[in-house]
Amino acid sequence: MENWLIKQAELAPYRPALVYEGRTWNFRQLKTKVHKIAGKLTHFIGKSVKRAGIIADNTPASYFMILAFQQLGVQPVLLNCRLAFSELERQREDAEVLVVFVDDLLKKRFEQRVKSNTHYYFISELDSITSDSPVIIQSFEDDKIASIMYTSGTTGHPHGVLQTFRNHFFSAVGSVFNLGLQIDDQWLCAVPIFHISGLSIMMRSLIYGTGVILVPHFDPVKITKLLAFKHVSLMSVVPIMLKQLLELYPTEGYNESFRTFLLGGAPIDAATLGSCQKKGISVIQSYGMTETCSQVVALNFADAPSKIGSVGKPLFPVQLRINTGKIGEIEVKAPNLVKGYLNDQAGFNDKLTQDGWFRTGDIGNFDKEGFLFIKGRKDEMFISGGENVFPNEVENVYAKVAGIKEIAVIGIPDKRWGQVPYAFVELQDHSKLDAASLKLYGREKLAHYKVPQAFITVDKLPRTANGKLKHSAVREQFSKVIAKLNKEN
Amino acid sequence: MENWLIKQAELAPYRPALVYEGRTWNFRQLKTKVHKIAGKLTHFIGKSVKRAGIIADNTPASYFMILAFQQLGVQPVLLNCRLAFSELERQREDAEVLVVFVDDLLKKRFEQRVKSNTHYYFISELDSITSDSPVIIQSFEDDKIASIMYTSGTTGHPHGVLQTFRNHFFSAVGSVFNLGLQIDDQWLCAVPIFHISGLSIMMRSLIYGTGVILVPHFDPVKITKLLAFKHVSLMSVVPIMLKQLLELYPTEGYNESFRTFLLGGAPIDAATLGSCQKKGISVIQSYGMTETCSQVVALNFADAPSKIGSVGKPLFPVQLRINTGKIGEIEVKAPNLVKGYLNDQAGFNDKLTQDGWFRTGDIGNFDKEGFLFIKGRKDEMFISGGENVFPNEVENVYAKVAGIKEIAVIGIPDKRWGQVPYAFVELQDHSKLDAASLKLYGREKLAHYKVPQAFITVDKLPRTANGKLKHSAVREQFSKVIAKLNKEN
Repeated sequence: MENWLIKQAELAPYRPALVYEGRTWNFRQLKTKVHKIAGKLTHFIGKSVKRAGIIADNTPASYFMILAFQQLGVQPVLLNCRLAFSELERQREDAEVLVVFVDDLLKKRFEQRVKSNTHYYFISELDSITSDSPVIIQSFEDDKIASIMYTSGTTGHPHGVLQTFRNHFFSAVGSVFNLGLQIDDQWLCAVPIFHISGLSIMMRSLIYGTGVILVPHFDPVKITKLLAFKHVSLMSVVPIMLKQLLELYPTEGYNESFRTFLLGGAPIDAATLGSCQKKGISVIQSYGMTETCSQVVALNFADAPSKIGSVGKPLFPVQLRINTGKIGEIEVKAPNLVKGYLNDQAGFNDKLTQDGWFRTGDIGNFDKEGFLFIKGRKDEMFISGGENVFPNEVENVYAKVAGIKEIAVIGIPDKRWGQVPYAFVELQDHSKLDAASLKLYGREKLAHYKVPQAFITVDKLPRTANGKLKHSAVREQFSKVIAKLNKEN
Repeated sequence: MENWLIKQAELAPYRPALVYEGRTWNFRQLKTKVHKIAGKLTHFIGKSVKRAGIIADNTPASYFMILAFQQLGVQPVLLNCRLAFSELERQREDAEVLVVFVDDLLKKRFEQRVKSNTHYYFISELDSITSDSPVIIQSFEDDKIASIMYTSGTTGHPHGVLQTFRNHFFSAVGSVFNLGLQIDDQWLCAVPIFHISGLSIMMRSLIYGTGVILVPHFDPVKITKLLAFKHVSLMSVVPIMLKQLLELYPTEGYNESFRTFLLGGAPIDAATLGSCQKKGISVIQSYGMTETCSQVVALNFADAPSKIGSVGKPLFPVQLRINTGKIGEIEVKAPNLVKGYLNDQAGFNDKLTQDGWFRTGDIGNFDKEGFLFIKGRKDEMFISGGENVFPNEVENVYAKVAGIKEIAVIGIPDKRWGQVPYAFVELQDHSKLDAASLKLYGREKLAHYKVPQAFITVDKLPRTANGKLKHSAVREQFSKVIAKLNKEN
């Protein structure tokens, strides 16, 4: 296919492509801007660079830079600004990247590092660079790499996921057949563009010829204003964002242009969804991963109210199956499934079944009508007295309890039951924990083996950059407590 | 990709798939119905048939039959019911088809033929057949043939165009990015389903999971009622349909669900489009062909009012170029471009340039902003005194003249000028032709060499099944008059 940016600059030159803090670039202006940066980049990194890194923030500068890499046929390696420097370096070295651009908004955090490491530069360092005439690629070939991002991988070392243009294209197509499309759509992007949740919004914009409203960070007050007064059609959210927006929901509702929230990243509790329903806020639950370039499953508008808790049905280009009986690991086959991991094709192939389906590592089940329910991560699931316990299920039950801000359930070895559930709880301000009544509450709602044996109050639970609760990090952060519990049991 | 019909029966089981004369089949019912027919077909034609023919009309029976062939992996050969029997037989033999089903609505015309030719059957003959369990194909492979239809080909013998599932898929995707999509969309199909204009509506329905309102034939009064009172979102029209609907346009307008007419098949005069604009009726001009599985170029909503006469810009997956200078033959490269002609790959390859672009045989030009204007068929163009004359341009100027129902301009050999334009005119009832004032009118609007030398009144001008004026047929039908003119010049 023709280079998407060039194509949209021809097809929809005057349609807004990017909106940021009141400034708008239409597709023609976006192309001009990006090609100008591509010229500077050519001067700076030369013409034969295969890959370059970016530590992006949600700013136009990062947005342009990612697109500029693509325009030059340079594979953008999207590094997560929230990682520790040693982690970043491991990823940079794995990707054999010699030049990494850091968004200037991250100056404070990265100033020393940029100074002391020859591979890192601030994007603004390009400002004073003269421009070489860039060699823009004329077509976006199906199997060419459009982006590389490292999975936050709950186990083992992170993998550089090789996302092709074809992967992004089919992801966008699968989404459009579910969510519909109006040519004046604008998608609010408050999720990080270095994650697939954000990058896929950018890619959809290039494919659909529609606009992105980019915000630098998630500020619920500011975003509520945008939703109320600006032409926002869709917004991608993770559960924690949705909860905060819900609290600020204006009595007059959002702007009439608003169609729906697309909810991903993690399952959400029924209480929050029920509350959205009561207020008439459309929320489309979805399920996807870096390896599938965003959504593979989503609810549709018609089913959303009656299927609370389900992430929906496999999108049009996607096939899903569950490998053992009623509840089991979800396997996927789709044109948006990536071809592999950088420098670890074997690691990727290990996740493929003999007939080429990708084992997601997620456990779920289909109901009678074909709606998918996610139980949790395979590696988070544990067995207690011969029964499967999915931490996520237990967590969702407790999410409704007043005073609990966030709860993480993990399995702790136990002589009698194999493992038993323990809960780590982050409380809301000025709340107190009453373990006895929490247990009682659990007994009412859950099978007894699912009820946590103890509730341990902690200051803060670890989350991924995407707001997802990270059980492996819980284990790591509270390893001492856990070791002590192990001994006791 | 998964079998589209099965997929939609899972994804959108209760959404209307087909509406016909007040009856509705949702996707689940459509699948059940089609699979039942597939079972009967299996019994009737056996399991190893590669291709089967259908002389379809716009009825559910034909609709189901085409889908049933696809479900079995049998290539449907869509024959045009308006062809002479000798033409049909030539196509049937070319496609090596042994069984052709004829829609029962065509009983009158085909009764004798079905009786006397062992290859032809009425669809109703399946009614009493028992059902074998059909072997339904589980996936619609990209390069598998989804449909074969013969081009009406203005020159030479007709070609069986091999349309793959991938071709249909990308055609549908190109369309959706231009026209947008709402999941409750319903597309009114009054164009023949044995043509790509109609078949592509069926395929889009399977791909989008949206509905088709099928009508047995073009009845402008009935269709105006549907447009006014039913949930119609889009309707494909050829110019002659649009003109008739325009005359009946209700003062209250159409139903609020109506988004636009998609106009194809032939260029339309500015007067008709201007009149639509005045009435606030949205018309999206488009350009496509059997070899590209429908549209490759279309206007978008925003540009439609200011670009009257243009067919728009190449759709997202499509690339177009014009091979010589400003005006020339349009060449296309697209994933919806078919791979070839049945039994005549050489004939198809002849139409490809050295670098693999398809020469459409249409002449056009892009304006400064990249909008395509079609001048006419390359083989209809002629040279008069060293200047190119495009019959279509001349015809459009005369289409506005009161009393003229249809006009065909062709080049007649001339000793002095090489060729000169002559017009064949079909008059409206009770109208008379005044050649002198018509010439005068032409002189005002056109360069002198484009003005027809004579206006010849005829009873009826020949059209293709799609309502397209067929210049080669004009030459054929009026060959005696033309031979006489040749002698005179």
